[in-house]
Amino acid sequence: MPRIRFLPDGLEANVLPGDTLLAAARRAGLALVSPCGGRGGCGKCLVRLAEGTLDPTDLERDALSPEQLDAGWRLACQARARDKNLTVEVPAASRDRGLEVLGAESDEEAEASAIDPAVRRRVVDVPAPTLEGPCSDLACFTRAAELADAEISLDLVRALTDALRAEGGRVTVTTQETTEGRARVIDIAPGDSKGPLLGACFDLGTTTVAGELHDLATGKRLALASAANPQSAHGDDVISRIEYAMSGEAAQRELAAEAGGVIGALLDEMLAGAGLPDTRVAEVVVAGNTAMTHLACRLDPASLAVSPFVPVLTNAINWPAAEFALARAERVLFLPCVSAYLGGDLVAGLLATGLARAEGPALLVDVGTNGEIALAFDGCLVAASTAAGPAFEGARLSCGMRASAGAVSEVKLKNGDLAVATIGGAPPMGLCGTGLLDAVAALLACGLAESTGALALPDSLPGALRARRVDRDDDPAVRLAGEGKKTVTLTQRDLREFQLAKGAIRAGVEILLAECGLEACSLGRVVLAGAFGTYLDRASALATGLLPEKLEPHRIEFAGNTALRGARRYLLERGARAEAARLAREVRSVELSARADFRDAFGEAMLFPERGGAPCCS
Amino acid sequence: MPRIRFLPDGLEANVLPGDTLLAAARRAGLALVSPCGGRGGCGKCLVRLAEGTLDPTDLERDALSPEQLDAGWRLACQARARDKNLTVEVPAASRDRGLEVLGAESDEEAEASAIDPAVRRRVVDVPAPTLEGPCSDLACFTRAAELADAEISLDLVRALTDALRAEGGRVTVTTQETTEGRARVIDIAPGDSKGPLLGACFDLGTTTVAGELHDLATGKRLALASAANPQSAHGDDVISRIEYAMSGEAAQRELAAEAGGVIGALLDEMLAGAGLPDTRVAEVVVAGNTAMTHLACRLDPASLAVSPFVPVLTNAINWPAAEFALARAERVLFLPCVSAYLGGDLVAGLLATGLARAEGPALLVDVGTNGEIALAFDGCLVAASTAAGPAFEGARLSCGMRASAGAVSEVKLKNGDLAVATIGGAPPMGLCGTGLLDAVAALLACGLAESTGALALPDSLPGALRARRVDRDDDPAVRLAGEGKKTVTLTQRDLREFQLAKGAIRAGVEILLAECGLEACSLGRVVLAGAFGTYLDRASALATGLLPEKLEPHRIEFAGNTALRGARRYLLERGARAEAARLAREVRSVELSARADFRDAFGEAMLFPERGGAPCCS
Repeated sequence: MPRIRFLPDGLEANVLPGDTLLAAARRAGLALVSPCGGRGGCGKCLVRLAEGTLDPTDLERDALSPEQLDAGWRLACQARARDKNLTVEVPAASRDRGLEVLGAESDEEAEASAIDPAVRRRVVDVPAPTLEGPCSDLACFTRAAELADAEISLDLVRALTDALRAEGGRVTVTTQETTEGRARVIDIAPGDSKGPLLGACFDLGTTTVAGELHDLATGKRLALASAANPQSAHGDDVISRIEYAMSGEAAQRELAAEAGGVIGALLDEMLAGAGLPDTRVAEVVVAGNTAMTHLACRLDPASLAVSPFVPVLTNAINWPAAEFALARAERVLFLPCVSAYLGGDLVAGLLATGLARAEGPALLVDVGTNGEIALAFDGCLVAASTAAGPAFEGARLSCGMRASAGAVSEVKLKNGDLAVATIGGAPPMGLCGTGLLDAVAALLACGLAESTGALALPDSLPGALRARRVDRDDDPAVRLAGEGKKTVTLTQRDLREFQLAKGAIRAGVEILLAECGLEACSLGRVVLAGAFGTYLDRASALATGLLPEKLEPHRIEFAGNTALRGARRYLLERGARAEAARLAREVRSVELSARADFRDAFGEAMLFPERGGAPCCS
Repeated sequence: MPRIRFLPDGLEANVLPGDTLLAAARRAGLALVSPCGGRGGCGKCLVRLAEGTLDPTDLERDALSPEQLDAGWRLACQARARDKNLTVEVPAASRDRGLEVLGAESDEEAEASAIDPAVRRRVVDVPAPTLEGPCSDLACFTRAAELADAEISLDLVRALTDALRAEGGRVTVTTQETTEGRARVIDIAPGDSKGPLLGACFDLGTTTVAGELHDLATGKRLALASAANPQSAHGDDVISRIEYAMSGEAAQRELAAEAGGVIGALLDEMLAGAGLPDTRVAEVVVAGNTAMTHLACRLDPASLAVSPFVPVLTNAINWPAAEFALARAERVLFLPCVSAYLGGDLVAGLLATGLARAEGPALLVDVGTNGEIALAFDGCLVAASTAAGPAFEGARLSCGMRASAGAVSEVKLKNGDLAVATIGGAPPMGLCGTGLLDAVAALLACGLAESTGALALPDSLPGALRARRVDRDDDPAVRLAGEGKKTVTLTQRDLREFQLAKGAIRAGVEILLAECGLEACSLGRVVLAGAFGTYLDRASALATGLLPEKLEPHRIEFAGNTALRGARRYLLERGARAEAARLAREVRSVELSARADFRDAFGEAMLFPERGGAPCCS
């Protein structure tokens, strides 16, 4: 099968029949910008052939100049790979960083250090029954396979009978270790089944679903893929989906089918991409927040939304894949949850970061629409969820956009004025989460914004900065980049949105620190997770007070998609299952909204630090 | 609800809308003859109103004389009970003894002495979750119900959520004890569910399916019912059904659906008859031979039919009823089997008779198309299956018929001639199994048949007997009853069929005795099971050599339908489940066809004892 190699990362993918370079890149773990949906309309997914040739399509001839075509430029959504190996260069401007974070690790990084899956496969020779000692198919099999106490379904007993007859008693059996330590037979195939033993793990996010396909014998990551969560049609956030689910059983079935559908589609895509289109997957592990887990498992989420916020269940789920309409898999597992707003994604985050095993106090902050915060200290583990809103994802801002080409992603002070950089170096089109954080830090540093969050009056500012102030009655603003209609601004309301978001997270951090009697400067590790938390600027996070300003910057780590990485551990290391169950039990959930001190902490945390900040407490 | 009482037995049934007396009688445990299928064509299901009145139908006016109608005679298949209580007298001639044996015990006899079901139901008050200590629905429930380690399906978790909300946290939970001693939640209902906790047990016979409905709190039998096994359309015997099943998966699905269908229909009928039409049944227990169990569970029976006769499984089955398309029940259980030809019906027989716990050597003989024989002695338990053929069920005889009205059921020597009695005293129409046994014993006693099985030549016989010999070249015979076209005869070929049947059983008995180093006269108990084994004449069984002639007649017991009685114990006593598993493991299956000495034993056993017999060995 021909392969495509993508530069500068060196990521590779197999070429499937009819594949566009865009599809192949996605399988290799690269997300390209394609605002037109891959229809060749926007011209943003430009790539350049570095090795190999491809005839341009008619649409490419129209969209690109002869010089561009000669230089090897192509539109990734139009160019179709053929039967030869290719090397393709992907310029920064064509990349979608927001999606890429899901697969930000290389395949090597994504391999487990300790591969010890709960699923095992082996070939068993079952002796032919004799007239002297005939026993049943099942008894002969369990004796030969040493699976006397194993759990086995009637359907698999039926499969056993056929398999035993097919190849003279030689069968390949796949077992899963249950939480009780018993063996469960999950597949039986005739003969020596040479195919790889596969597993998949998924981060079932409210917005985005990302998955990885692994070889369970080696731990090797074979493919990765991501897609939007189709449940978004019923609302962007968790609450609106819960409300939709409350409209009746049909809605709950629809939401569950959408979750199962996108997981199944990504599974198919990854299997095809790995060159294993007809192979079954032994286990599919899913980490999702509590609401996503409920919706996917068709558990009534109604009580998640009202005090006292009671989930239907928080246990880990380990279920026949047929229950989730996943035809290609044997078992589906969901990580355990802690409470209504601390879900399997947080448990996965704890698994991925080893937070609970850290020496000294350690903090995990997953910045998203719902910010999840966990603090581990001396065997004690507390966590809280806080509704940060979507500002960090670029939503609800006057010029907000996702972290893709053209988004202002950096704002610095330079020669007494603001200087911006965009993703891919493209002309500025809007403001993404990291840009917002940087912009606010810069505005605070130069006096364009005050510590209350109010924009400074133009008259009080020096010349270059005064020119940046856009004074208008309804919503005064600061011009960050661009001119005229293409101006990217940060308005007073944007600043208030930011204050709400960072105040929610910061207040959560403060409450958890207080719960443990800790001060911020004692934190040995602060782990930032999620797409936003992978690219932000440490200094800006401290300067804006998103994180406690007393924190030593070098304590801040970026952990990427910890939900997916934790799900991967759950898939590849059977010991991680007991660990996850223990973590889910041990995490003490701090319900911020129920606390009298949260309102004060939130009010305090909305303010910005005074310039210069407080000295470290130590 | 009006009731009908049937005399002389005193059995009662509720009257359901549209009920015929025939249907009500069946529910009460009485089988009436209805060769026309209940269409009013044969006039054989005559009953008499003893208390109460019923207007005759037009068809009854045509079929019965005015005097008969005035005297209260009605056709049970036509007369429909109304809204008043009735007492109905059932004459012996209208009864079908062959079917009745299934319900031959009274309700009192059918109650378990020790009621200790594996299924329990109780009301649990689950405390409302609080903001301080919120846990999940499932965790709150399992804590309040003390079911921390219980098995529960996702569907029942869904039901739990609804149930908890419906009545302020009060729910009724039904649990089943698993074989491992864990609890399995099998039903959750809102509030205090006052309905009875029901269970049903079935004898899934090759020919007839019989069931009982029980109240699991009291052990009381609420209803019983029986029907023909609809799989008979694919052949009367086990082998022809296995052959049909081998034609493909569709055939296997059809056979399984037929088994599930008849069980479901009988369940519905019994629930309606018990006045509980909308009640669910917690457990349905089924005892069937290994082939019936395979076909009902859609396990490939092909290897049962060829040496070395390997079942797919012999374990007990405990499965969600939905797997068997039984909408009314929660769980379906099949008794464990021993081997391909020693099934759950034999294990049930051992359970019902306590054979393995008997003091001194004890023998169980279930005489049917397949004769099953078990011998217990000093902790050792051996069993064999032997193909007796259908002669004892009246089939394959020149004048054979089932044990219903008009069947010659007794043949004795009287004043140097043969004297017969028929079931119900009706004019002789044919010969049933017990009549065959009696007839052969009588022929041997008077010299009409020799110990080789050859009919005596007419010339050698005294006058009265000589007149009974029908000499013809193709198949000489003895006239047992009737004249002309209505003559009931026993032919030389009939005698050979009998010899094959009794030889098979007797040889099996001899081989098992030899296996244990025992002689027949040491047997403390000989338990005869099945319809045939309930009405036969002890002396005839010994005189024909069906049972060893050295046996003391008073050692012979009649146990009725031991498959149904054993299934009942399995339903009502949880301890019986471990006992059945142990019995199924401990029974040593003796494969007669594989033994060198079987052919000799069979040849020997086909012969009849010399008149006078051997003296007892003791």
